[in-house]
Amino acid sequence: MSDLHPTFVSETPLRVRYAETDAMGIVHHASYIIWFEVGRSDWMRQQGMSYADVEASGYLLVVSEVQARFMRPARYDELVVIRTRVAELKSRKLRFEYEVVGQATGETLVVGATSHIMTDRAGRVTTFPAALRALLKDGGAADVV
Amino acid sequence: MSDLHPTFVSETPLRVRYAETDAMGIVHHASYIIWFEVGRSDWMRQQGMSYADVEASGYLLVVSEVQARFMRPARYDELVVIRTRVAELKSRKLRFEYEVVGQATGETLVVGATSHIMTDRAGRVTTFPAALRALLKDGGAADVV
Amino acid sequence: MSDLHPTFVSETPLRVRYAETDAMGIVHHASYIIWFEVGRSDWMRQQGMSYADVEASGYLLVVSEVQARFMRPARYDELVVIRTRVAELKSRKLRFEYEVVGQATGETLVVGATSHIMTDRAGRVTTFPAALRALLKDGGAADVV
Amino acid sequence: MSDLHPTFVSETPLRVRYAETDAMGIVHHASYIIWFEVGRSDWMRQQGMSYADVEASGYLLVVSEVQARFMRPARYDELVVIRTRVAELKSRKLRFEYEVVGQATGETLVVGATSHIMTDRAGRVTTFPAALRALLKDGGAADVV
Repeated sequence: MSDLHPTFVSETPLRVRYAETDAMGIVHHASYIIWFEVGRSDWMRQQGMSYADVEASGYLLVVSEVQARFMRPARYDELVVIRTRVAELKSRKLRFEYEVVGQATGETLVVGATSHIMTDRAGRVTTFPAALRALLKDGGAADVV
Repeated sequence: MSDLHPTFVSETPLRVRYAETDAMGIVHHASYIIWFEVGRSDWMRQQGMSYADVEASGYLLVVSEVQARFMRPARYDELVVIRTRVAELKSRKLRFEYEVVGQATGETLVVGATSHIMTDRAGRVTTFPAALRALLKDGGAADVV
Repeated sequence: MSDLHPTFVSETPLRVRYAETDAMGIVHHASYIIWFEVGRSDWMRQQGMSYADVEASGYLLVVSEVQARFMRPARYDELVVIRTRVAELKSRKLRFEYEVVGQATGETLVVGATSHIMTDRAGRVTTFPAALRALLKDGGAADVV
Repeated sequence: MSDLHPTFVSETPLRVRYAETDAMGIVHHASYIIWFEVGRSDWMRQQGMSYADVEASGYLLVVSEVQARFMRPARYDELVVIRTRVAELKSRKLRFEYEVVGQATGETLVVGATSHIMTDRAGRVTTFPAALRALLKDGGAADVV
């Protein structure tokens, strides 16, 4: 991930579950997409706002895009760390970036990103609420318009 | 499954997904629990009522118990059939039974059951709505009180 | 998806499972990644070669990249169709493209792509076996080197 | 769970993932089955033997039965604790029991059990290896024959 913008990077440790593997003997690629979600939940929590609170206030952070590049496989029982940062925040778009690292080796296993829009409960796209924008800015979003 | 009560048995064919396997090279045991759910959704649909309609009318069919016995493993790409029937219907309890069969061999892979209660959107336990009871009775529930 | 190259497009119908939804009331975004896998399994099967056979012959088709763009949500019980085609085939890289369409509306719900490399059981990257290359070429891969 | 036999009970904390919820707004019942697996992995690790080591030595601990009773739902972002103990160990059968507790309330959410047999890589049922039996006995299995 780019080092151009100094931003808050959360680190979330995870132990690989057996159910997350597949018949190749390695972690199924869709499991990492779920780990990205765990990472961004934790990023928000570490910044002082639970995503559960966001939903309780009537807003949904909907995933509009995902990308991932799988470099080395993780395996059952391995400890990994998910590094998460906010890479971009515009009035109607938020982008997180992720790096999954093997804890023992420090090697990068997977890099990825998700883009998000915010909607209300009726599915109407909204701008990000002020409280969330403030939080995301303090979290060091690299490109806040 | 018991043959004591002649009841409607739905048959739902499925092809095993790669994501449903694990590092043992076979289908992960939790995948069968999801197949049971696919089976009872299909049982209801074949009886003329979608579970989506049940929820749209304000009721939730909550799983209160699950049991499964794993006899032979299913593998990636295999065709299986889920046989589903209603084994019991009381005013506040519904029980489905399942048998997962390999389509090529006819062998029983897994047998299981789920029990359900009905709640409203606020989580209050209710009796089954008349329309659903009628449907379930017509579906041949063995023990309708 | 681009219409530049006329290629074989498989169509795989799916009914949305309850387990594939999340607390937003819609299909969880990682479920579509699994559907892509279902789509490419089916593409190969429709072309006359099961991916199970590929693995049985000692090769693994490893996912090296995934992208997806989520445009409209799918919901429980909905029928969707996964359209899959091979967009690129090089000696060491294969790229599939996907479009998930709502069957009732014909609307595009999700578009995406996966890139793959081939390895042997020891994890060494190999070129694609001749039989698979022939199959993929016949399947109309747009850019076969 | 029964208190008749004093046995080692591992405690494994977990935070509920968004992907583990469903359209009812609560944790999908199959997710608890995966948590049971996380619990018994952790029980073994806390007893000094990783299940990864068991597999590396050529043995598979196959799930032959699962039961679960769902009493109260867990929700996204909630902290839960999985309590795991060995309830029974015979020469060819091992049974774990589980209790999932809400960390904030101490309330029991789910109780369950899994039974296991041991096989070699070829799928032949074997007795439990001596090292594993010793470990399980030290772990306080209530009924070791």
